[in-house]
Amino acid sequence: MTTEYDYDVGIDVRLRDIDFMGHVNNATYATYLEQAREAYFTDVLGVSLVDTGTVLATLEIDYARPIDADADVTAALRVPELGTSSLPIEYEIRADGELAATARTVQVLVDEETGDSRPLPDEWRRRIDATRG
Amino acid sequence: MTTEYDYDVGIDVRLRDIDFMGHVNNATYATYLEQAREAYFTDVLGVSLVDTGTVLATLEIDYARPIDADADVTAALRVPELGTSSLPIEYEIRADGELAATARTVQVLVDEETGDSRPLPDEWRRRIDATRG
Amino acid sequence: MTTEYDYDVGIDVRLRDIDFMGHVNNATYATYLEQAREAYFTDVLGVSLVDTGTVLATLEIDYARPIDADADVTAALRVPELGTSSLPIEYEIRADGELAATARTVQVLVDEETGDSRPLPDEWRRRIDATRG
Amino acid sequence: MTTEYDYDVGIDVRLRDIDFMGHVNNATYATYLEQAREAYFTDVLGVSLVDTGTVLATLEIDYARPIDADADVTAALRVPELGTSSLPIEYEIRADGELAATARTVQVLVDEETGDSRPLPDEWRRRIDATRG
Repeated sequence: MTTEYDYDVGIDVRLRDIDFMGHVNNATYATYLEQAREAYFTDVLGVSLVDTGTVLATLEIDYARPIDADADVTAALRVPELGTSSLPIEYEIRADGELAATARTVQVLVDEETGDSRPLPDEWRRRIDATRG
Repeated sequence: MTTEYDYDVGIDVRLRDIDFMGHVNNATYATYLEQAREAYFTDVLGVSLVDTGTVLATLEIDYARPIDADADVTAALRVPELGTSSLPIEYEIRADGELAATARTVQVLVDEETGDSRPLPDEWRRRIDATRG
Repeated sequence: MTTEYDYDVGIDVRLRDIDFMGHVNNATYATYLEQAREAYFTDVLGVSLVDTGTVLATLEIDYARPIDADADVTAALRVPELGTSSLPIEYEIRADGELAATARTVQVLVDEETGDSRPLPDEWRRRIDATRG
Repeated sequence: MTTEYDYDVGIDVRLRDIDFMGHVNNATYATYLEQAREAYFTDVLGVSLVDTGTVLATLEIDYARPIDADADVTAALRVPELGTSSLPIEYEIRADGELAATARTVQVLVDEETGDSRPLPDEWRRRIDATRG
């Protein structure tokens, strides 16, 4: 992993990820990003997405090359800057060491009762800063 | 459907689409877009994506509101302008008549043997033009 | 549909259902069965599986033939006999009018707080009996 | 793993595997079994399912307990006896060391051109025998 990313995680490609084109399905890349976020949240923020009221606001993926069933896949990510309630993440998906996709998501922390956005905890900001590459 | 979209299709939400948040998973929106593309290709271009050498180059989704398991979902699309080898599509996903997401994809037509891009067929251009809203 | 089944529902095959073999993935048949159960619960019992404390105890599928992406698929089901807390269902999945699979599941109604099984409501028994083919 | 199983593999649970019930979806167990088969084929038989003309004939799963998103999951398998063309496998899925499900599949080796069953290669029989627990 290049030093510009803060965190990376291995992804187990499943046969079920392969689609009618014979490669990992385009929508499954979004699932790989979700797994990378979950690993980052668990390891860095100390909390699972399951227990966090974040909703996805935007998702962008640029596909660079197809991923085969037997590829060795990793997802790297970095947090470029934090908003008041929003947590942007940039990603790079690599297959057998080659760039397979770049991506970007923005999550927003919401109050699960009212649905209103709420500020990111200071603790999260400290932990994210401490992990920057 | 507003008149600005060229085409729309109903989407059957599956219980399996619902995730740990209790709503349609963010990656599943990309599957809904794929279903909308497949319906458009089959109905308008007269060919299934299965038999077409198109690869997805980019995907962007802006999530507007969560989709429940029992929602009545439709996906509308339009083709804003055609490149030489690239086919951009803009989408709107609606749940119970409310905007759930907007999205944009760019597909590229490739030669399945060489992987090089190749020009969109004139027949496709004619059919796409004839369907514009 | 033969008269021996109590209920049937159409299934929208998605491109995402197609796997590395070029046909609907074996695990996706289980998703089709779940959709058939959900439709039956909603239409016949008047309640969504989402709001019902049933858990799956067993699943058996006998695959008869592969399902193509463009197949017209239906799932039919019948309830052979009811246990105290258990609801067995027999299924037939058809693709383009041909048998694609037979299947059987047993669900158990549980108390969502304790996890103990609890008796099927009399109202369910009445509605299931009234729907038998 | 108990000594009665021939082979076992770790399964990465994904957030996307969790369904509306808050646990790994029942159909996803079948995907875990497919991953275990693929690992066994690759490691023991030296060939990926992708390059093997096997089709699934039957699938049976007995669910013992729900699997949580953060569970440590393994799938163990053994080959009880071989038919002429059929390869039966028995499985045990464990979550955090506890039995989550037992399962059984039968695959049939087919000629990919004619679709007829064909005998299992002697090389497979030798390798399977050599791996028995």
